[in-house]
Amino acid sequence: MHPDSSPSGTPLSPQDLQHLAAALALAEQAIGLTDPNPRVGCIITTAHGEVLGAGHTQPAGQAHAEVMALRDVTDRGHDPRGATVYVTLEPCAHHGRTPPCCDALIAAGVARVVVALGDPNPLVGGHGLARLRAAGVQTHLLEPDHALAVAARELNIGFLSRMERGRPFVRMKIAASLDGRTALHNGVSQWITGPQARADGHAWRRRAGAVLTGIGTAKEDNPRLDVREVPTARQPQRVLVDSRLTLFPEARLLDPPGTLWVYHAQPDGGALGDALTARGAELISLPDPNGKVDLTAMIQDLGRRGINELHLEAGNKLNGSLLRTGLVDELLVYLAPMLMGDGRGMVNLGSLTALDQAPRYEVVDMRPIGADIRLRLRPTTVPRDAR
Amino acid sequence: MHPDSSPSGTPLSPQDLQHLAAALALAEQAIGLTDPNPRVGCIITTAHGEVLGAGHTQPAGQAHAEVMALRDVTDRGHDPRGATVYVTLEPCAHHGRTPPCCDALIAAGVARVVVALGDPNPLVGGHGLARLRAAGVQTHLLEPDHALAVAARELNIGFLSRMERGRPFVRMKIAASLDGRTALHNGVSQWITGPQARADGHAWRRRAGAVLTGIGTAKEDNPRLDVREVPTARQPQRVLVDSRLTLFPEARLLDPPGTLWVYHAQPDGGALGDALTARGAELISLPDPNGKVDLTAMIQDLGRRGINELHLEAGNKLNGSLLRTGLVDELLVYLAPMLMGDGRGMVNLGSLTALDQAPRYEVVDMRPIGADIRLRLRPTTVPRDAR
Repeated sequence: MHPDSSPSGTPLSPQDLQHLAAALALAEQAIGLTDPNPRVGCIITTAHGEVLGAGHTQPAGQAHAEVMALRDVTDRGHDPRGATVYVTLEPCAHHGRTPPCCDALIAAGVARVVVALGDPNPLVGGHGLARLRAAGVQTHLLEPDHALAVAARELNIGFLSRMERGRPFVRMKIAASLDGRTALHNGVSQWITGPQARADGHAWRRRAGAVLTGIGTAKEDNPRLDVREVPTARQPQRVLVDSRLTLFPEARLLDPPGTLWVYHAQPDGGALGDALTARGAELISLPDPNGKVDLTAMIQDLGRRGINELHLEAGNKLNGSLLRTGLVDELLVYLAPMLMGDGRGMVNLGSLTALDQAPRYEVVDMRPIGADIRLRLRPTTVPRDAR
Repeated sequence: MHPDSSPSGTPLSPQDLQHLAAALALAEQAIGLTDPNPRVGCIITTAHGEVLGAGHTQPAGQAHAEVMALRDVTDRGHDPRGATVYVTLEPCAHHGRTPPCCDALIAAGVARVVVALGDPNPLVGGHGLARLRAAGVQTHLLEPDHALAVAARELNIGFLSRMERGRPFVRMKIAASLDGRTALHNGVSQWITGPQARADGHAWRRRAGAVLTGIGTAKEDNPRLDVREVPTARQPQRVLVDSRLTLFPEARLLDPPGTLWVYHAQPDGGALGDALTARGAELISLPDPNGKVDLTAMIQDLGRRGINELHLEAGNKLNGSLLRTGLVDELLVYLAPMLMGDGRGMVNLGSLTALDQAPRYEVVDMRPIGADIRLRLRPTTVPRDAR
């Protein structure tokens, strides 16, 4: 089937695709706003393509994109009857915190709904389109490999991960010199990368539902892990891995706004736990048999807590442990064009004895950021020999 | 002055620039052929732009580009009188191993000469154009920052370095994992990068007048350091840094074709020296006060020996020592998208205590090569704060 055609066989026009792309651009404005709900954009036009209204998802519990767009149509004094609706994710068919968007579209009398990506939520998948069709609305769904469908998927990769796999999309951020050093032996790491790269890193933090680090970094750098370098409507949840529960209560991680979730491996928090709780922390005990935090269980738990994208900013030890879970979906690597020689490495993997033990990735994006280089990589799915 | 105009103020036409670009493409065919002479291309056209003949520099001692192009004009039965000559480097005005090209052009009766780049050779610089003008030939020279002049300079960056600075352009090639490891602790390094990156590395070897490594790599990997993965008309000179003169006489570095220059720090070569010499090696003693090879003197010596581009493929120790000379002009870095954790680093710089001690570079080129990434970097000339 042609990628620009819907499963019903009716081809989409270039104008249809333009409206869908505009809806996707609207959806991007919902980054940092709607978690744990997906980022969705919606544009409503006349049958001839004049825009009547538009909207994107609001914070969780508030209106979805379709409802925002319908309101916009009405607010502008237009009539949605017979209109075409462009929406980046399949309209919901279930009662969550808001009524189903399908029903709103049907009640508004729209004639046609064009969707970039089917909803992976088992409560929604396919039901939304089916209910629209049953009400006589014409529907179109892009093929999953269409560029706009792929872009809609990437925009909600964390939400989709949670729906499809029950866990967050896990992104590991690393800033290093060209020769892979994240700090000098004496711990100095400020600043290896330049201001543009650091601001870009904050934009990725903003996308995330949670930003996670380890107790080593917390003690050494006393980071805030908040979003400062780019504007944001909300701060991501901060998460700390602290198996032995040794965080100092003055840590900046505990400063408002926002709270800290502390995963530890102790039977109870004791007096320090009380002090941390008094500073707003939530303590979660998830021990593995070795007396450390069970990182796999932690990532699953973060999924249950509604974290779509989990942003990791840890040192080489915790990075190595996180990689060994096999649950890291993406490396976000900033390389500064400098040589440091010795110093701390990106990840501690133990001493490998053969190259086929090394985790391999494929580069999905590379670009200059200021004077630095940004790479995004995902675990390779192609065998080495077939490259 | 507009970059497309000549210093004489006569603007060059788009057709002029097209012919000059074609001459540059011809000059690139001289890579791996003409060392220590520069890579030069020449196209001769009628005053109206019809191509009459073309050529590029031949191996040293044979014809230069202008003479090859003039021969091509005659061979095709054309008359060069009144023609326009496009040449990527200023025609020579001195008697070297061949007669001056200026005289050949004047004798042929050409009317106009368009040059991409002035010759930096103090025996030639400006004299060629002056002699042409004195003979009534109209001349044009691109501004040095014109894209074609920059490309002509890059193509002959080693020749220009030798003319302007008396030493080769020094390029350090490094293949490493994403986290900057060039080998596992047990020395395993085959293969970190993929076949496309390795072939690309051989294309850079082919450009070089000499390929240099150290005794550590020679003993551990027993490399050939020749050009195998891409076709070549000649092999670059192989060079070994072996301060204590401990190479084994069976080393592949000594295999024909080609010979090996061994820089050492011993008073004489002794019996091993005789064995190496019998295998075609030339021994050069260049000790520094610490009993090691004086690397700065070695690079100067390689310049005197006609090496334009020096290609370094050494281990982290020698890489560190070479960087400390301050004479490394470019890093050619292949990063494989894999994580190795521990292992050997790119360069040994000792233990830095502050980030401002780290050598900084600017990325002049980045691109994917197969599944790997290739970066080219040059020492930064912009202060860190002004980035």
